[in-house]
Amino acid sequence: MTSVAASSGKSLTELFVQAAKEAIDDANADRVDALYVGNMMSGFLQNQEHIGSLMASALGKEGIPTYKVEGACASGAVAMNAAVKGVLSGLERIVVVGGVEKMSGHTTPEVTAGLMMAEDRMKVATSGVTFVGLNAMIAREYMQKYKISHDALARFPVMCHENALDNPRAQFHKRITVSDVLQSPLVADPLRLFDCSGTGDGAAAVVLAPIEEAKKFTDTPVEVAASSVATDTLSLYQRKDITVFEGSRKAVEESYKRAKLSPDDIDVLEVHDAFSVLGIMALEDLGFAEKGAGTRLLEDNQCSRDGKLPTNTFGGLKARGHPVGATGMYQIAEVALQLSNRAEKCQVPNAKVGLTESVGGIGGTVAVHILRSIEQ
Amino acid sequence: MTSVAASSGKSLTELFVQAAKEAIDDANADRVDALYVGNMMSGFLQNQEHIGSLMASALGKEGIPTYKVEGACASGAVAMNAAVKGVLSGLERIVVVGGVEKMSGHTTPEVTAGLMMAEDRMKVATSGVTFVGLNAMIAREYMQKYKISHDALARFPVMCHENALDNPRAQFHKRITVSDVLQSPLVADPLRLFDCSGTGDGAAAVVLAPIEEAKKFTDTPVEVAASSVATDTLSLYQRKDITVFEGSRKAVEESYKRAKLSPDDIDVLEVHDAFSVLGIMALEDLGFAEKGAGTRLLEDNQCSRDGKLPTNTFGGLKARGHPVGATGMYQIAEVALQLSNRAEKCQVPNAKVGLTESVGGIGGTVAVHILRSIEQ
Repeated sequence: MTSVAASSGKSLTELFVQAAKEAIDDANADRVDALYVGNMMSGFLQNQEHIGSLMASALGKEGIPTYKVEGACASGAVAMNAAVKGVLSGLERIVVVGGVEKMSGHTTPEVTAGLMMAEDRMKVATSGVTFVGLNAMIAREYMQKYKISHDALARFPVMCHENALDNPRAQFHKRITVSDVLQSPLVADPLRLFDCSGTGDGAAAVVLAPIEEAKKFTDTPVEVAASSVATDTLSLYQRKDITVFEGSRKAVEESYKRAKLSPDDIDVLEVHDAFSVLGIMALEDLGFAEKGAGTRLLEDNQCSRDGKLPTNTFGGLKARGHPVGATGMYQIAEVALQLSNRAEKCQVPNAKVGLTESVGGIGGTVAVHILRSIEQ
Repeated sequence: MTSVAASSGKSLTELFVQAAKEAIDDANADRVDALYVGNMMSGFLQNQEHIGSLMASALGKEGIPTYKVEGACASGAVAMNAAVKGVLSGLERIVVVGGVEKMSGHTTPEVTAGLMMAEDRMKVATSGVTFVGLNAMIAREYMQKYKISHDALARFPVMCHENALDNPRAQFHKRITVSDVLQSPLVADPLRLFDCSGTGDGAAAVVLAPIEEAKKFTDTPVEVAASSVATDTLSLYQRKDITVFEGSRKAVEESYKRAKLSPDDIDVLEVHDAFSVLGIMALEDLGFAEKGAGTRLLEDNQCSRDGKLPTNTFGGLKARGHPVGATGMYQIAEVALQLSNRAEKCQVPNAKVGLTESVGGIGGTVAVHILRSIEQ
């Protein structure tokens, strides 16, 4: 993982190559059979496509098959899912999968327009509503429907900022309070600046291999116990209840089934808190709380690293940062570090099973992964 | 397949949905487990990403996993390869894979800039050279190195236009001569207008399933005997010999090996003739002629539909059209029609094995597929 930065001074290629090389070196992989690159906005922001071939070439790995996989803000995690299928297909064994996004060097209107590509251009984006605006509608509806205060939602970013203090790669190293959140500038009512993840540059990558092969490379392999992608209707206007992400429910249900696990088995959780309300909704949609009861987990301090359900242990989207197409891979790399006991100051003791949830658009795509440590 | 048109009057979504619905109906598929969408330029031209979820939603298939796969001009065929791996992984059985591109509604400079996203933005595109310009360098080098005349190259587009006369979905229905090619306006020396494929809107899709399942749906299933993606260095300046696409050689070698077939077994061939010289080079790189001898196959009339190696039987990129991210899927759908004896006026008698070659960028990515008819 590269450090997440509002302005890294690095090109898209430099970001990806740094993360991929670090992953290959760390894994002791002696070869790479295929490369999967998750990214959302390179065409729009950098006017650069064909980045699978570009990155393979830059890594000196030209020749291998490459894939750019896009699933909006979940691009990294969707690429991970495609890479898992690549290994399962038997056509490739040692696979590098990474996510990358460069958002710096562009104006706020440009980045705002770029993010809005996750929504239906013809039917929704042209109405003038922004991506934050759509999430603000969700927040308003959630707060009204379940009688939840903004104070309660604000506990989520406060927790994330606390965790990020121990993550040297996090974008923000600043302790904040509920009061700071509520007094921060209004972005789209009711969402304030500290309800929202920032924009940043970043890349993260991992190496995948069949378990028996992985054991040859490292003493601390981590198993992909489940990898699921699900979709929902693309746009809010098509949904019955905008306070639920059916894609999250569907993806996690499939993942629990595949891994033969339940919410009780999860030792560490990384959720897609692009906005505070989404962090809370994720706790519910993934099965850790009843609908409308997500904020109670934070009131009971359960989501802290020393709680029952350590969540966003490296700072989450809010404080580690949200380099869009890379974020899903940050979550996966962070959980892999947790499960191999290499999370340093962010370490959750005895974490054996971790779950990641990555959301594309307004829940139009959701990718869930369950990772598990392997007893050697 | 939709008809390819310079200006279809249809949106990206309408194009894809038309092709996908036609494929699903034709296959009698009773369900869809996953959707793969190949596309190159939607972010740049339509300011629309997240098109996997968008298309699933528009098809009324929300819920299923979706993937946008990008590999420049080979996006459709690379998506096919990813979908094949999806089925082989065992995680999904009935899969729809399609390619789509909408190039209309934009100025020539915009589309030219869009195509150049296939090249390295920072090192090559910023030099001012266009995508046609790079291919013109290849043509010049090829003609000089192998003492090949422009007349000889021009036989390729002439053949393509001849074949397209029988394809109702082709963009161009016009017989042309070698003289027409040589007298057409200069685009980038030595390439003239009729050396170049046009820009167009289009979408094409197929349904994949394990063979035993496919046999339940249709009496004319076609087997994917091999599906290979390979890359080369991204840019021409990185190559020793720009008259060879090493990616094509590598991908086809792997495909022949996997299918246990050789060039002699191929009954129908679809190659990526974005420019006349690329059609000729493909005949060589795929093993049908020695290097520098590709044009002789056309002089001997071997590539016509009644020849020994029927090539671009529906008109190829030059005359069927080249809606970039869709083109690889047009090739695959056309070969599938050939092998199931449903190619109508374009039919090659007794075609049992077909090969497609789809090229991304200047050969930075190549996807090869070998399809085979199944004796019931």
